[in-house]
Order: sequence, then structure tokens, then C-alpha cells
Amino acid sequence: MTKYDISSPAVIVDLDIAERNIERVAVSTRKNGIKHRPHIKAHKSAYFARKQLEAGAIGVAVAKIAEAETMVEHGINDILIAYSIVGAEKLQRLKKLHQTARVMTTVDSLEAAKGLAGIGSPENPLPVLIEIDCGTHRGGRQPGEDTLRFAMQLRDFKPLQIKGIFTYNGNLYHTENTEQLRGLVGQESQLLTEAAENLRQHQISVEIVSGGSTPALLALEQLHGVTEIRSGNYLFNDVSGIQFGTASVEDCALRVLATVISTPLPGYATIDAGSKTLTNDLSVRGEECGMVVDPPGAQLVDLNEEHGYLRYDPDRVEVHAGDRVEIIPNHACVLPNLCDRIYGVRGDDVVKEITVDARGRNY
Amino acid sequence: MTKYDISSPAVIVDLDIAERNIERVAVSTRKNGIKHRPHIKAHKSAYFARKQLEAGAIGVAVAKIAEAETMVEHGINDILIAYSIVGAEKLQRLKKLHQTARVMTTVDSLEAAKGLAGIGSPENPLPVLIEIDCGTHRGGRQPGEDTLRFAMQLRDFKPLQIKGIFTYNGNLYHTENTEQLRGLVGQESQLLTEAAENLRQHQISVEIVSGGSTPALLALEQLHGVTEIRSGNYLFNDVSGIQFGTASVEDCALRVLATVISTPLPGYATIDAGSKTLTNDLSVRGEECGMVVDPPGAQLVDLNEEHGYLRYDPDRVEVHAGDRVEIIPNHACVLPNLCDRIYGVRGDDVVKEITVDARGRNY
Repeated sequence: MTKYDISSPAVIVDLDIAERNIERVAVSTRKNGIKHRPHIKAHKSAYFARKQLEAGAIGVAVAKIAEAETMVEHGINDILIAYSIVGAEKLQRLKKLHQTARVMTTVDSLEAAKGLAGIGSPENPLPVLIEIDCGTHRGGRQPGEDTLRFAMQLRDFKPLQIKGIFTYNGNLYHTENTEQLRGLVGQESQLLTEAAENLRQHQISVEIVSGGSTPALLALEQLHGVTEIRSGNYLFNDVSGIQFGTASVEDCALRVLATVISTPLPGYATIDAGSKTLTNDLSVRGEECGMVVDPPGAQLVDLNEEHGYLRYDPDRVEVHAGDRVEIIPNHACVLPNLCDRIYGVRGDDVVKEITVDARGRNY
Repeated sequence: MTKYDISSPAVIVDLDIAERNIERVAVSTRKNGIKHRPHIKAHKSAYFARKQLEAGAIGVAVAKIAEAETMVEHGINDILIAYSIVGAEKLQRLKKLHQTARVMTTVDSLEAAKGLAGIGSPENPLPVLIEIDCGTHRGGRQPGEDTLRFAMQLRDFKPLQIKGIFTYNGNLYHTENTEQLRGLVGQESQLLTEAAENLRQHQISVEIVSGGSTPALLALEQLHGVTEIRSGNYLFNDVSGIQFGTASVEDCALRVLATVISTPLPGYATIDAGSKTLTNDLSVRGEECGMVVDPPGAQLVDLNEEHGYLRYDPDRVEVHAGDRVEIIPNHACVLPNLCDRIYGVRGDDVVKEITVDARGRNY
């Protein structure tokens, strides 16, 4: 079976490229003395999580409890739930995970800490990372005095074990060029280093300093003091990665295969992949709906739910109903979540159907 | 079980509102002498399709073959596949459907017609609607001479039965006000009426004239000559519907229930619903990521995959970690597709778990 036999539209992953991406980041993190705990949000599958662990990852990161449950069901037992867990139902499920696997979570409020304390015990404390807000204002204590005060209060929760600190630098995604991006990675590193020193001076143990992301890989050597990073997108890469400069077209493992269904006017074609396949996510620095790699010279300018609008110069590009179209998505992390399965290919051959085990598990 | 017991985030549908929406459009289409063939793209579930049929819908419309297969599996047998079907694998599946159910499809090219002709037979011809491009340039023949010439050619395909004509007026979604919208609905009606007359003058039977959409419901009385419409969104409504003037907040049946997980700064809160729950779809005339109905006064200004960014005036609105948040999405049609199930509620009570039977069936 080749990729052209798959019912269209479909998400394919070139396994040679994906394995190369895994290996490249394994090598570069090792070289910089940083551990890697990949975020599974992009692939949501036990298959790729195992590949990442085999290449040296120390565990995985997830956002939601249901993602952690899925990983544990598949025998993956070292998990950072990079999320603030609140509410009785969620805590009950986290308790079960804590009893069966090595899970850690982040915390940024006393309310949340009280809930988490009900899960651990002084004999088997729940490991937590203190989240610090590095300017994204998504979560976390404010740097400096606020973080220190919170850590001192948290120390009194005996069923919790402070393992370290954590930040998410979402502002990286709003940078306009590589220089700005490097600057922000440097700031993230400085914030985490200062926070770790400050806590250690007050006899609070900071074993883990968790930061980083796929764009931060561009400036890994500036992540001084960070002990582990949580890249997710690097496995697949996408148009945003190309624009960041962290990936080339040849590094983009995940593609959408679509089919031309109509050519209403010269230069106008419609494909069978719309926002229910590609999503309407834009890339960080672009306006198109994805990068068309085949046929070269065509642009994907708009999407409806099940239709994509191609535009091309009819004097230079030939397009007919039935033609296959290959697209690199703007944001690869959100596509597997729309599919029950994605197709692993080597060259044109389909070699594996990969189940998206945690698809839709956002709760 | 009340809606507050559902693991968050979740998509809920107020069944009282949904049933009222179904009934309202059933009445208004009947009053205007137009049949209704609702598009199932929004709900993708046999449950709601049956409700629509019970209220008088003549059948359903779908985009993809896999959606049609799902409907047939659930005993729903009158289906317009409002899509151009190309490719051997798709045609093979359409053939099976044609042998077991009453399916119709659209066609806009001789290439596609040749494929479709292989499915029908002179004794059991495949019914088709000729798609006409009313300015959206997504598909269809050009109005006038091009449509007529195509219809005359199509008449020679004996395994196909021309049942009528079809258009999709996507430009409605780019109007800035109700007056413009009414104007475009009038144009759609005129285009279809002229095309039908033109074909009939050439002895081509036009039994079905298929147009319309949810925004077009605002000007139903202007859809002269249209015999059936294909609204989908009207079942749920959403922020775009409110902006179009086709719905009020009280008509919005589908909501997202989320939970506040962090309040990093005064006026800043983060919820557990991001783009993997709400999508990044914008509304037709707005910039926010959804309409927060509870707590009143909060705005949803940005999304990450699993996080939503709330902003509010901390002097007027109180928000704490653990608080429930209720959101009307910008574009309801794309949310059930992210879930295995949605929750039917009456008031606060959960009365039914509704399976999204055709979730992810985009092929």
C-alpha cells in the first residue's frame, strides 16, 4: 500500500523524518547537558512516546489527566502533568495515577495545593513543580518575592514534595525574528536561574528546572540552569517551525494528503481537506492555510470545514480533479487530535497505522 | 447528574433550545413552501438527524462519503452528498450506498460525471444535482451558457439522472450587515431561478433546486424558486449566528463548560478549554475566542491548545480557581467533531449522552 491508496484526506507522518527529528533533539539536548521530557500533545500516541523514550527522553509531559491516564494504560510511567489540577473529580483521578505511576504536576495557588495535598501522604508525597509566570500570564506565581513566599507556604504541605520550578514562555510565539526569539529564551533562562537560586538560598530544594519548547531549541545553549525541556512540536515540525528557523521543509514529518475535487475557474481549485482536517490555526508569521508542497506553485488561501481553496497560475501549474495534493500544516500539534489514526510512511510506502490513543482526551 | 458534574471541559447541548430551533425552522420553511434537508456537519450524530427528520425534514445533507455511511448505518436513508465525488475508492463506496439507500450527489465536471456514471445503471440511475458557482468559486459550473452546455452533455450519461441544481453561497459569511446578507440571498435565488428556467426550456428536468444555509434563514422569503435548503448550524447557533442576527443568546443550544485553573494576576484567569476544545475559528464579525456567558463581564481573548485566556475587571468580576465558566463558541459546527460524546442537558440536568457518530469521518 502506498500513501496514494489512503482514503483522502489523511494525515501521514514520514517516519524517517520523525526518527531523525527525535534523534537530532536527543543529541543536542545531551550535548547541552539538558534532559528531555517531550510533550505528547502533538502526537498523543503511545507509539511515538516510546520512540522518544528509546532515544533517551527521561519521561513525557502532558497537559490533561486523561492524557496521563492514556500514557499509563500503555505502560509509560514517568509523567509530568504540566497543568494546574483543580476540582474533586480531577484530583480523584490524579490520586489513582499517583498510586500506580511516577507522576508530577505543577502548582501555582494555595487552593490547588490544598487539593493536591489530599492526594499525597508524608510517606508517599506527590511531587510538584512550582509554576512561575515568565510574562505569558497564563499561570504561575510572579517572579521574585511572590514565588519565594508561595514556596515557603508550600513547604508546610507535608503530603507535597517540592521538586523544582516550571515555566511556559508563550511569548516566544509572538516574536518577529530569530534575534527576538533568542532574547526571550535568554530571559526565560535568567528568570528560572534566579528563581532557583533564590529558593535554594532559603533551603528549598530545586532539583528540576523545567522550561523550553520547540522554538527554544534554536537557542538551547542559552538555556543555562534549565535541567529539562518539554518540546513537543519538534517531532513533526510545521510551517511555524520553518518560519521560526527551527526546521526546513525536509524536516516536516507530518503532511496532509488531499485530493482536488473541483476546478471551477482557471487558477481556482478546491480540495477535500478543510478546517476539520487542517484546522484554521494560522502559522506564527503567515496568512495562508498551510504550505502546499505538491503541486509546487499552488497556494492554500482559505478553508471551509471540508473544503480547501487552492489558487495558482494556470499558465504555470496544471491542476485537475482527482489530483493528489500534499500540504505541510501551519500547526502540526492539532492535526492528529482530529484523527483516529495517522499513517506512518517511508518514502511512498505506508508501513504503519498509528493510533492516536489520546485523541480528544482533553479532560 | 448535573452539568457541573461533567469532567471539564465538555460540550453540552441544551435540548430544550435545540428542539425549539428545529421546530422554528421546520415551521418557517413550511410556511415559505420550502423543504428542509438539514446538513449534519454540525452535529454528526444519528440522534439529532432523527430529531430533524421527525420534525419534517425530507432527508439529510452530508459532505463526505464516510458521513453518509454513518447515517445509513443508523437507518437514515435519504441523503444528499453535497460534494463532488472523485477517485476510484470513493466511487466504490458510493456505489455500495447507492445500492442500499436513496443517495444523491452533486456534480460539476465531466471527469467526475464519468466516474459517477460507473455507479448507476440505466435501470437504477444515480440521481445528481448540477452544482452552479454563485460567486464563491468553491465548485460548480459558471452560471448561464456554461451550466447549460454542461447539463446538455450530462444528459447523455444514461446511468445518471439529473434531478436538479445546487449552489453554495459562501459569500454570505463575508457580509458586514443584514442588508448585504439579504441582497446576497436575493442574488442566490435569482441565479438558481434563472438557471432552472434555462434548463427547463431545454427539456432538462429540474425537480430539485437546492440552496440556502443558516444565515439565509434570515431572508427565507427571498429564496423564491428554491425547493429545498440545507441549514446545519441553526440547530445549535453560535456567536456568528448572533452577529448575523439569526439567533439570540437564548437560541444558542451548544455551550462549552470549562473550569478556571489559574489566576496569575488580578484580571487574568486561565481556563481548561483551549483550541482543542473550542478551535481557533473566529466568528464572522468578531475577534474574541468565544462569548463568555458565565461569569458575565469576562472576555476570552486568546487560546493555546489546552488553555483559554480570560480577561476581566477585577473590581467588578470575581474569579477563582475551580470556578465553572460557560462559553458560547464562535463556530458551533466544528466542536462536536472534537468529542466522542456531547452532553444533552435540560436546565442543569444531564439527561443524555449523545454519541458523535461521524466524528472525524472526513474521508
